[in-house]
Amino acid sequence: MIIVMKPGAREASVKKIEALIESKGLTAHLSRGAEVTIIGVVGDKTRLAGANIEDYDDVDRIVPVTESYKLVNRKFHPDNTIVTVGHKKADGSSSGVVQIGGDSLVVMSGPCAVETEDQIIETARAIKKSGAHILRGGAYKPRTSPYSFQGLEVDGLKLMQEAGEETGLATICEVTSTEAIEAAVRYVDMLQIGARNMQNFYLLKEAGKTGKPILLKRGMAATIDEWLNAAEYILAEGDSQVVLCERGIRTFETATRNTLDLSAVPVIKEKSHLPIIVDPSHATGVRRYVAPMARAAVAAGADGLMIETHPNPATALSDGPQSLTFAQFDALMKELAPLAAVCGKKLD
Amino acid sequence: MIIVMKPGAREASVKKIEALIESKGLTAHLSRGAEVTIIGVVGDKTRLAGANIEDYDDVDRIVPVTESYKLVNRKFHPDNTIVTVGHKKADGSSSGVVQIGGDSLVVMSGPCAVETEDQIIETARAIKKSGAHILRGGAYKPRTSPYSFQGLEVDGLKLMQEAGEETGLATICEVTSTEAIEAAVRYVDMLQIGARNMQNFYLLKEAGKTGKPILLKRGMAATIDEWLNAAEYILAEGDSQVVLCERGIRTFETATRNTLDLSAVPVIKEKSHLPIIVDPSHATGVRRYVAPMARAAVAAGADGLMIETHPNPATALSDGPQSLTFAQFDALMKELAPLAAVCGKKLD
Amino acid sequence: MIIVMKPGAREASVKKIEALIESKGLTAHLSRGAEVTIIGVVGDKTRLAGANIEDYDDVDRIVPVTESYKLVNRKFHPDNTIVTVGHKKADGSSSGVVQIGGDSLVVMSGPCAVETEDQIIETARAIKKSGAHILRGGAYKPRTSPYSFQGLEVDGLKLMQEAGEETGLATICEVTSTEAIEAAVRYVDMLQIGARNMQNFYLLKEAGKTGKPILLKRGMAATIDEWLNAAEYILAEGDSQVVLCERGIRTFETATRNTLDLSAVPVIKEKSHLPIIVDPSHATGVRRYVAPMARAAVAAGADGLMIETHPNPATALSDGPQSLTFAQFDALMKELAPLAAVCGKKLD
Amino acid sequence: MIIVMKPGAREASVKKIEALIESKGLTAHLSRGAEVTIIGVVGDKTRLAGANIEDYDDVDRIVPVTESYKLVNRKFHPDNTIVTVGHKKADGSSSGVVQIGGDSLVVMSGPCAVETEDQIIETARAIKKSGAHILRGGAYKPRTSPYSFQGLEVDGLKLMQEAGEETGLATICEVTSTEAIEAAVRYVDMLQIGARNMQNFYLLKEAGKTGKPILLKRGMAATIDEWLNAAEYILAEGDSQVVLCERGIRTFETATRNTLDLSAVPVIKEKSHLPIIVDPSHATGVRRYVAPMARAAVAAGADGLMIETHPNPATALSDGPQSLTFAQFDALMKELAPLAAVCGKKLD
Repeated sequence: MIIVMKPGAREASVKKIEALIESKGLTAHLSRGAEVTIIGVVGDKTRLAGANIEDYDDVDRIVPVTESYKLVNRKFHPDNTIVTVGHKKADGSSSGVVQIGGDSLVVMSGPCAVETEDQIIETARAIKKSGAHILRGGAYKPRTSPYSFQGLEVDGLKLMQEAGEETGLATICEVTSTEAIEAAVRYVDMLQIGARNMQNFYLLKEAGKTGKPILLKRGMAATIDEWLNAAEYILAEGDSQVVLCERGIRTFETATRNTLDLSAVPVIKEKSHLPIIVDPSHATGVRRYVAPMARAAVAAGADGLMIETHPNPATALSDGPQSLTFAQFDALMKELAPLAAVCGKKLD
Repeated sequence: MIIVMKPGAREASVKKIEALIESKGLTAHLSRGAEVTIIGVVGDKTRLAGANIEDYDDVDRIVPVTESYKLVNRKFHPDNTIVTVGHKKADGSSSGVVQIGGDSLVVMSGPCAVETEDQIIETARAIKKSGAHILRGGAYKPRTSPYSFQGLEVDGLKLMQEAGEETGLATICEVTSTEAIEAAVRYVDMLQIGARNMQNFYLLKEAGKTGKPILLKRGMAATIDEWLNAAEYILAEGDSQVVLCERGIRTFETATRNTLDLSAVPVIKEKSHLPIIVDPSHATGVRRYVAPMARAAVAAGADGLMIETHPNPATALSDGPQSLTFAQFDALMKELAPLAAVCGKKLD
Repeated sequence: MIIVMKPGAREASVKKIEALIESKGLTAHLSRGAEVTIIGVVGDKTRLAGANIEDYDDVDRIVPVTESYKLVNRKFHPDNTIVTVGHKKADGSSSGVVQIGGDSLVVMSGPCAVETEDQIIETARAIKKSGAHILRGGAYKPRTSPYSFQGLEVDGLKLMQEAGEETGLATICEVTSTEAIEAAVRYVDMLQIGARNMQNFYLLKEAGKTGKPILLKRGMAATIDEWLNAAEYILAEGDSQVVLCERGIRTFETATRNTLDLSAVPVIKEKSHLPIIVDPSHATGVRRYVAPMARAAVAAGADGLMIETHPNPATALSDGPQSLTFAQFDALMKELAPLAAVCGKKLD
Repeated sequence: MIIVMKPGAREASVKKIEALIESKGLTAHLSRGAEVTIIGVVGDKTRLAGANIEDYDDVDRIVPVTESYKLVNRKFHPDNTIVTVGHKKADGSSSGVVQIGGDSLVVMSGPCAVETEDQIIETARAIKKSGAHILRGGAYKPRTSPYSFQGLEVDGLKLMQEAGEETGLATICEVTSTEAIEAAVRYVDMLQIGARNMQNFYLLKEAGKTGKPILLKRGMAATIDEWLNAAEYILAEGDSQVVLCERGIRTFETATRNTLDLSAVPVIKEKSHLPIIVDPSHATGVRRYVAPMARAAVAAGADGLMIETHPNPATALSDGPQSLTFAQFDALMKELAPLAAVCGKKLD
């Protein structure tokens, strides 16, 4: 931590801060410049909790030197985390097991919302055939308006499980409450924390206690630093099976629903050991931009993709305009295979 | 709802949409221009749920004409809502009763986090003396890092109650989970939904069920339209006692923690009948900008203010750098009284 | 300047940087922490131009300690700058002289674009009667589309001069090119650099060479730091008569055209000695939000306002929807007088 | 154009607008809904210039139906524009001719600023060897601070020409003023309008008059719609040889200098017939993110790339931290060739 003093800071002010730092068992290093004096603090800065140095006389500002997240930080954990999704069946065989963060490109697909048994089973079969690995489908839908379809809840989870069993796909559902978590751990293989709940720290802790693989979407206005701190909440509960998902941030541009921040892929790869996938469907909100942005995500180095599909987007209860038809999804998967190969990933 | 067709849209595409609209019992009005045809849809548009007209051939886009929020919409409820905070004591007398949205300027103040009995009692006394109406203090703190102080939880609520009883101030606490709501309804007069939970729809519904006065802060990346839809979730549960709070939005500017969007005050006053207050402390994150922005909020027409104070900001466990000392708060209150008078509000 | 090394930086890397710093006649102060080493650089950092220390081995990042702007920086020039606008007439008498940055609230008003002699004379008389000090009117209009009205150019400047002479108001016009500057210095009292040209550094230098009072609007995506650096370009040419104008920044919110960042007022007052005024018309883009935001600007401490007025907004060639009628402007001026008084400013 | 009336709009207000529309020789189509009435306007809306319908009684808002840009609009010019860069030499042979917008991926590279003859010649040779097509190098540098290196101006242009002749590469330089344009047309093959000047409409017109190929960078806060309108300014002067360049927009994220909006590639491809290239160097501002984002740009469908290189980034006078070394550039080009092939582009 570095303390930057104001120009003309009084000697007494500097001394007072030095004394504070040393009283906490830390060491202060002074650099006196022509204009300003800076004080480097050496040691465990958590000892300074409750001492708001910004509030001391003649202090201009504090510059943090180290990140507040530790468990998700590549500096302290250099090796890539590989997250395994799937489960053992009653007969001991495993179902839908897939690894995210290794040398395979993992594709999650399915409808925004689970609507009917036919819809989800049909979708699971279609995406399985095209090569997807994990079935997505929302049972608890966070919707801007209370008058929009809110999801089938537990019935939706059961349909997800059924579709997973039927096809051998692993499954993922968003959870929005403790109750949803309790239900979801019974029926699906991976829990999703959505963008709107990225800083619902209570939910993060509850999810972290399950030990399940968790997909943590980036909040619409979350910096990468805040996103990694949110992941830290989950790891701090003992759950290291976290996958990050970039899904667009909010900017002034309205041609797309959000602005897909693909630079987040190399930034996350540098700062953290956690896998990162990309959701071009929610990011763009427009079906015809999904394929180019899916390709771009793979080329940027993403570990996987989440792509919305629907048997009949024109009748989808949620997010129809961004859902691909099965034919479009199949065509995209055929495009992605050679692209992934060029980028050093397998799609199989 | 208006459907804008693409240039050169085929007649068959137009007919198909007309047929869809009429099959739902609605009426289609066509305007055929030189370049494009537009179709106005007359009637209850919720009948079109599940029909994604964007997905029909030759459709360029859909333009909504009416807002999705109804209960909070001034168009349908022209009179200002006045929210009453406070409670009856065991002896039948009322404690801390104050009305928000009328002709008084209501000031909420207190520390970011409840830390100790001394701290909160001392604060309550000081702000009461300076003329504040409601004591704020966090017991459940949403913090970016899991390693920051997370709040005293129920013990904090009890201290808030004690401080309220002691001074006759009404009290408000943020709630971040169902458990927190259950506890808070017992101890404090008003519940706060924080910025990070503005689209935690599950929490909004749970809060709405309590019937308590609720302060709904604007999310950092929430449009005013989304904010009003979030309020609609609460009113849809039957709780009409909602006060909105502008607390800054996230932009590229870093001189302040967030960018206080004071234009939201006249916009909300126009679009909704709900009261709106302003929190310059969280918006700016810098103590010396709090007073000017508090004054500006009053001049913009806000119904109240939320201002952080602390007995000793230099040792506050949370948000010290933006907290006013009691002397600074007292000076601000003295400035606000004549300003409020000029702006048609009473501060007493 | 502070150099933060990466965790585990090699001793050789640290030595190499120390050697570089010392080779430039500067002093390096090392603070070796448990995790990272930081190096404080003491001395004139411009000596390091052309040495990209970010590019040295094991460097994590550079933290600047001092601002790059000097002439506009309050740290080095603590006294408020007062800018005088107006001119001497041929007979030696002065016309329209007004001071910005002192204890008076200065109001500039007029149409977005000069359209006709009648329009601008009528406007000048109306705003003069209501108490405005400076007549604004665009002769060179930067318009998003090439098919929108682009301004009357020199003819517009002449009409501005005529209206100024007629009423005794000082005048201001936006300049968008060297040619426009050359013409404007002959006809009007103050030059405006618009938001879209805030980082047109060539134009800033040319304007700075005129020695005229200059109003520098903030760019839509400009940080306060960049804005002050833009002002520094003008002062570096020898022209210290600069007034800043906050006019809204671009954010995700669409209820207003831009988001008026009123916090910029206290921030600028702290960081710089230059006066700052506020333009609520361009910021909101909506007539009915202009008055509340004008009031808020005064309460935040602005030195003046720029408010669009038009004899008949419904036929304005540019920005009609945000222009006040003369009656609305007059009512606003009557509101502002007592408000300014409460805030320590005179409006006369 | 669609006019949305307020709920409860009076019949007289509707009639007045109908009369206005018809008085201009246009046709009004009314749709009367339960809540609101909308009026579709059929015909050439430019006839309504100077009639601010927003200002009529009971009007809620205006919804434009067609884009204001015409010449750059794919709706009216469906075929891709192919821009040819390069020139004829005195002996009649052509030099550095390359086509942008066809089936080849075009790579522009070079230093942020031209510094010395050695630097630019060395760079030209190195990038030519690695397969680049166009040499970039700034002679007029728009810098945030007036104290930063501002470029060699005409001397820099001459060095660019020399390096182009020496290697057979086409050349591009940014222009920031009329003088710069006049000089640049003599020495280089393509003019660049930088992000800060995207809405310097005067400069756009001057550049458009040269008939030279022009690279138009997106402004930091420019919507895609504004960007296309800026290009319209150039085409409206008769110059159709425009290439767009996405270079990052300003958002709240600080891990990268700007946020590269790669979705702009498919959006532009849909809305316009102009070619689009991507500049990952300025977008990210960080050398190690340049290669992944360059790959992503190609996968998103970009027609080319602009990538900064420097013989010794550690001593670059501008933007060193984002410049690639020659070895890094060469490695990137080798990666891009198979990727481009998979994406349907040739890199040769």
